[in-house]
Amino acid sequence: MKLDTGFIDRYIKNRELDLIQQEINDAHKMLEKGTGAGSGFLGWLHLPSSTTGRLLADIDATADMVRRSAAVFIVIGIGGSYLGSRAGIELINPGYAGDKPVVHFAGNSIDPESLSNLIKSLKGKDIIVNVISKSGTTTEPAIAFRVIMDMLAKRYSRKELKRRIICTTTKGKGGLWDMAQRRGYKSFFIPENVGGRFSVLTPVGLLPMAVSGIDIKAIIKGAAAVERLCKSDDIDKNPCYRYAAIRSLMYRHGKKIEILASFHSRLFYFMEWAKQLLAESEGKDGKGLFPATAIFSTDLHSIGQLIQEGERNLFETFLKIDAKGADVKIPYCRDNIDNLNYLKPKGVDFVNRMAYKGTALAHSQGNVPNMTLSVKEASAASLGELIYFFQRAVGISGYLLRINPFDQPGVEAYKKNMFRLLGKP
Amino acid sequence: MKLDTGFIDRYIKNRELDLIQQEINDAHKMLEKGTGAGSGFLGWLHLPSSTTGRLLADIDATADMVRRSAAVFIVIGIGGSYLGSRAGIELINPGYAGDKPVVHFAGNSIDPESLSNLIKSLKGKDIIVNVISKSGTTTEPAIAFRVIMDMLAKRYSRKELKRRIICTTTKGKGGLWDMAQRRGYKSFFIPENVGGRFSVLTPVGLLPMAVSGIDIKAIIKGAAAVERLCKSDDIDKNPCYRYAAIRSLMYRHGKKIEILASFHSRLFYFMEWAKQLLAESEGKDGKGLFPATAIFSTDLHSIGQLIQEGERNLFETFLKIDAKGADVKIPYCRDNIDNLNYLKPKGVDFVNRMAYKGTALAHSQGNVPNMTLSVKEASAASLGELIYFFQRAVGISGYLLRINPFDQPGVEAYKKNMFRLLGKP
Repeated sequence: MKLDTGFIDRYIKNRELDLIQQEINDAHKMLEKGTGAGSGFLGWLHLPSSTTGRLLADIDATADMVRRSAAVFIVIGIGGSYLGSRAGIELINPGYAGDKPVVHFAGNSIDPESLSNLIKSLKGKDIIVNVISKSGTTTEPAIAFRVIMDMLAKRYSRKELKRRIICTTTKGKGGLWDMAQRRGYKSFFIPENVGGRFSVLTPVGLLPMAVSGIDIKAIIKGAAAVERLCKSDDIDKNPCYRYAAIRSLMYRHGKKIEILASFHSRLFYFMEWAKQLLAESEGKDGKGLFPATAIFSTDLHSIGQLIQEGERNLFETFLKIDAKGADVKIPYCRDNIDNLNYLKPKGVDFVNRMAYKGTALAHSQGNVPNMTLSVKEASAASLGELIYFFQRAVGISGYLLRINPFDQPGVEAYKKNMFRLLGKP
Repeated sequence: MKLDTGFIDRYIKNRELDLIQQEINDAHKMLEKGTGAGSGFLGWLHLPSSTTGRLLADIDATADMVRRSAAVFIVIGIGGSYLGSRAGIELINPGYAGDKPVVHFAGNSIDPESLSNLIKSLKGKDIIVNVISKSGTTTEPAIAFRVIMDMLAKRYSRKELKRRIICTTTKGKGGLWDMAQRRGYKSFFIPENVGGRFSVLTPVGLLPMAVSGIDIKAIIKGAAAVERLCKSDDIDKNPCYRYAAIRSLMYRHGKKIEILASFHSRLFYFMEWAKQLLAESEGKDGKGLFPATAIFSTDLHSIGQLIQEGERNLFETFLKIDAKGADVKIPYCRDNIDNLNYLKPKGVDFVNRMAYKGTALAHSQGNVPNMTLSVKEASAASLGELIYFFQRAVGISGYLLRINPFDQPGVEAYKKNMFRLLGKP
């Protein structure tokens, strides 16, 4: 992967970089030695290098079983138990359909209509369910699991259900673990020192991705490569720390909004995943960048005007995939009513790449600092690189912000009110 | 419709409201008399009350023809020629599938992979295309139209194509108009004084919505009701102007981000439409609120922490539908591992509504000013109300900001660079 900072360097003085390098050295030590805030949740830090082949083989074997026998695989989870695997599946198998099971996501909202539509679509289909919850009591997935279990229990015997329910939860704790033990459901575990939004490289994210046919060993390998890169705390050598430094400086300069943008629509959910990671890690104590996401060029015809000429309180991070994917030739047209015949020998991919270049330049000309993170291809290895890159970057930038990047106390506030309104005993 | 400002009023002094009322009176006059900036683009202002039954009947007859004969209806357009009809279709017919034609959207990006996937999915299907472009030369829809026309021309005779291509463009101008005349394609027109992002109530938005089975007369009726409401410029009587006043005051108070949020996922694309309308109208001259969108509760597990406890530079506008849609019962569960049995007689819809109430209160407690705009039901009439509400509100708030709400000069910047890079003659 490569971080191109050509359109952002002029906003940053060398002196600033020297000073922030010292802060980064400290943050690096806090992470590595576990001396910073939230150090009980650093299980993700060396997860790539410590994931065992045995765990990956277990996940792959389970995924093979699912792929052989189910038409539909339902992943029940919310937030960190949802976005990571969806991000991977949409990046690597966009619009995929075929003889592999279709992956559906449920329990990621309380919207009754989405759940009702899902239930209707499941009629007569062969189903395997993966329910993912650290505690087993998070309202959204719990409701979806109840409703789907109710349907399955009417359809299948207790014995048959053993093949059809897979639990991903905390080992030895909570209702989901209890149930899995009692009923003999296959279970995978989330290490207690890995928070939800950092859990995509545990079975939480790996099992659904493996079911959709993604090479999870390659994901871990990609992540481990960036983990190795992060042995160096030098922002001239480590693009991940350089990114953390630059976004922290942008924030200090009053750029309060970071737009994650891409010209590849297959990256939509990856950016949603990154948005959650960044927002939930940093948005506390009255601080934190506001992360927004955009798919261009479609969103250039939405927020493009504002980016180009609105409040100068934002900067952009582009995500780019270097390898060409499926392309479409632009056909010659005799009457040329759209004046596009000059594009003739080129494909749509070329136009899309020139649109990216033109946009990065235009935004720079409009005084929107922007940088570009590129990966080689839309592959499992690149996915692993991207995942670990953002996890590690927010660990560092969170410490630079002097907050605890690993808790989320504010998420409880709406739940507390909701439980009172629901009359929870 | 109703605007509930209970969680935002305490941030605003009565004196501020009195002062802004005077500004609103002026803005109202500028709109009605056409004396403000961009007054050449006020065609949308009295569109609801002036849309003829004859135009609606023509659109409905064309839609009926499409519904009778096509399996797939492809709408080619970007920005304002895309988001409005998609918003309506997703709001009123979410996840719809049946004997009506499936509506696909194309030409809203330059992503080669999306286009390639669409082309593959069209094999052997009976297709009618609606190409929407004021000029006929916007790059994204022009490329998609070329590619799809190339496919259709190989499949159908020139005569057959006459039944399969519908153009929506400027009357008497541009390549698309020329082609439609020459080849005898059915055409609808976009008034020249209606900008793209204000064009959803013209054939641009109405034809695709009619094809998907939506009652377009009811849309216009709903919009006309809000148009009538806007005869009053009194923010105590007109919720649309009250909304414009409050969001302008929030901006002046340093709340630079407006989050449009809803607990109804069917409103996702409506909020995307509103985001475009707001961002492209206001984001200029170094000014303008940054609009973001969120679907809760899923996004409470993403940006919820940040909203609750991050930078206090944001406020929220909730969109709510009062009528209940499809609901799902929460089944009783003997072992009650999730402790949800207390919810037993309730459905998921009830939980979702309590989640909304709990969230609005929690965010208010966290010093995030928020207000709620409610409509009666997910109907064509409510859609019309919502559309005109936001159009009119941004006309007013744009003038309060002392910018031209009806141009978009910044959208050209990336195109200029892109054309140079593409070697356009």
